[in-house]
Amino acid sequence: MKLHIAVLPGDGIGPEVTSQAVKVLKAIAMEFGHIFTFEYGLIGGAAIKKSGTALPEETLSICKKADTILFGAIGEPKYNFDPDAKVRPEQGLLKLRKELDLFANIRPVIAYEDLLNHSPLKNKCIKDTDIIIYRELSAGIYYGDKTLSEDGQSASDVCQYNRFEIERIAHLAFKAAQSRQRKLTLVDKANVLASSRLWRKVIMEMAPQYPNVTLDFYYIDNAAMQLILNPRQFDVILTENMFGDILSEEASVIVGSIGLLASASLGPKYAMFEPIHGAYSKATDKGIANPIASILSATMLLDHFGLLDEASLIRKAIKKSLKLHITTPDLNTKYDNISTSKVGDFIEDFINHPEETNLN
Amino acid sequence: MKLHIAVLPGDGIGPEVTSQAVKVLKAIAMEFGHIFTFEYGLIGGAAIKKSGTALPEETLSICKKADTILFGAIGEPKYNFDPDAKVRPEQGLLKLRKELDLFANIRPVIAYEDLLNHSPLKNKCIKDTDIIIYRELSAGIYYGDKTLSEDGQSASDVCQYNRFEIERIAHLAFKAAQSRQRKLTLVDKANVLASSRLWRKVIMEMAPQYPNVTLDFYYIDNAAMQLILNPRQFDVILTENMFGDILSEEASVIVGSIGLLASASLGPKYAMFEPIHGAYSKATDKGIANPIASILSATMLLDHFGLLDEASLIRKAIKKSLKLHITTPDLNTKYDNISTSKVGDFIEDFINHPEETNLN
Ligand SMILES: CC(C)[C@H](C(=O)O)[C@@H](O)C(=O)O
Ligand SMILES: CC(C)[C@H](C(=O)O)[C@@H](O)C(=O)O
Repeated sequence: MKLHIAVLPGDGIGPEVTSQAVKVLKAIAMEFGHIFTFEYGLIGGAAIKKSGTALPEETLSICKKADTILFGAIGEPKYNFDPDAKVRPEQGLLKLRKELDLFANIRPVIAYEDLLNHSPLKNKCIKDTDIIIYRELSAGIYYGDKTLSEDGQSASDVCQYNRFEIERIAHLAFKAAQSRQRKLTLVDKANVLASSRLWRKVIMEMAPQYPNVTLDFYYIDNAAMQLILNPRQFDVILTENMFGDILSEEASVIVGSIGLLASASLGPKYAMFEPIHGAYSKATDKGIANPIASILSATMLLDHFGLLDEASLIRKAIKKSLKLHITTPDLNTKYDNISTSKVGDFIEDFINHPEETNLN
Repeated sequence: MKLHIAVLPGDGIGPEVTSQAVKVLKAIAMEFGHIFTFEYGLIGGAAIKKSGTALPEETLSICKKADTILFGAIGEPKYNFDPDAKVRPEQGLLKLRKELDLFANIRPVIAYEDLLNHSPLKNKCIKDTDIIIYRELSAGIYYGDKTLSEDGQSASDVCQYNRFEIERIAHLAFKAAQSRQRKLTLVDKANVLASSRLWRKVIMEMAPQYPNVTLDFYYIDNAAMQLILNPRQFDVILTENMFGDILSEEASVIVGSIGLLASASLGPKYAMFEPIHGAYSKATDKGIANPIASILSATMLLDHFGLLDEASLIRKAIKKSLKLHITTPDLNTKYDNISTSKVGDFIEDFINHPEETNLN
């Protein structure tokens, strides 16, 4: 297969983890006889430095021309303490999601047997957890009108949803549930928010189309608790943009490190694959950033194009790396010098020599 | 001391837990020679049934006349599946908070040594956790304009804050930090939301007034993760209304049961004390509801009026009850028949005979 992949490394640890994912994709292309080409674009803080805007036209056009997109991370610490900044790295990502109409962000949360000990949660509470979060990604409070009053004394954000925006991601989530444990949980705050009540109404109206899916509803506050108390109760979680952001990052504690969570952002025409972690600038260029989330994002990319054997080989390589403690420090209690690129190298090797490595 | 206390039991388990708190307050009055009088008001689903409104005028005036308010819980399951309902139980609570200008909701999260095993988190991760959450309670998305388009196809909520609303709770939180570990964490989503950027700006401008307080900032998604990964890093958490709702319910997993978390809602003129748990209707009238959150709310009420010995006696009684496994089933692995009122009776007894009970 020929795939032209736009690569947007972004800020902080984005470049170093993304380069491991590219390394792994190249190994896959080699091993399976595919032709993967890569074209790089600037986004976020890196783009602001160069061009004054967080999403240059050129980057957008690279993305639109490509078959798919691999995204790194975004954010720079200096903006954290500059609430007045007009141009901000995150705008690049938000605008990209919007321009490409990436409305469904899909975030799997799977407890790896070999990592159970790394979670702050008791093994028995998280063992066998297998959740998939469907986060709406193109609307809600991220995109509603934002105001700052002229005197700077008051500010507001609007959370808006319409039926179409809810329905299209809900169909994906219902279908995912059908192919899994047939359980869908809508997370909202319908006891307080009008937008949440619309979500609830639309989902209730859609439910009869998916009679074999058991549907339940949690308020976001309760969901944030239940996710930790008893994560195994969940199969597919469907929720709006900001609640999905919160819940999925929270869910990383089940897996043991946020450095392990990948996601797919899908739209009618485009698809982008991105770790759920941020730019984590403190770790930049130290060789300690966990590349697995980025490599797993590449794996989801392969799945998306039906390259299932390829994806599954990478997953095997990742499991092996975890078993052998070939992991970055966030997960390593055995060795203290396994760097970002060493993890990538191990996975690349495994792909190049699957038979041998399997014997280890 | 003479205290006239408005009691609003509300819905679900509200009445049964509140009656234990009242029992305990009566015992305290007896033991310490105070005169506590109680006046009951309807609110929530219970009030809708009787009067068609979630906060009858009479209830509001009972609250305004009283020295303070003890609140139970609110919510009825039938509204969960009726997104079109115009009158909803929660409106009663929201309106009450607004009418009384209860802008600061203070939620302590303390890991009890005797309950560490009840948490899904590993003991070593939560031991000695002692956090206090300052949740803004009278503004934000709970109170902004809500719209549902005429055709019912689109809905929105506005999250709005002004400087004054941020400053007044921030002063309380900074002061709390000064009397504790001197660490204040602001939780927001300033990389995306304009209202969050105003929060950040205001807090940064206030910081020099509290030079001995270390200030840091977390995005809500990161905070939801950090709260579980390493709760001991937090001292005072300050945040807006909805984020506070989410974080505090999530934090209940540290303590072992949401049935243990109490809160104080303070304003310039009034003060209300309420468990953070909801109406939990499934448990209503089964004698299994944990009354501790309500009893602890009463304890915070006593603290508020400077009745520190009284409050501390109740806290001792609660600790004793936990040690002796005199707890409702949510926390009990030893006995399976300790009811809501038995827990209340034990604490009442302890107060009536502190010397004897202490010998146990
Ligand atoms: C960087 C930020 C804007 C982004 C978000 O909140 O969506 C990130 O946290 C994520 O989850 O992808
Ligand atoms: C019942 C509900 C409106 C309320 C809230 O969200 O504030 C509750 O969850 C709480 O935390 O006190």
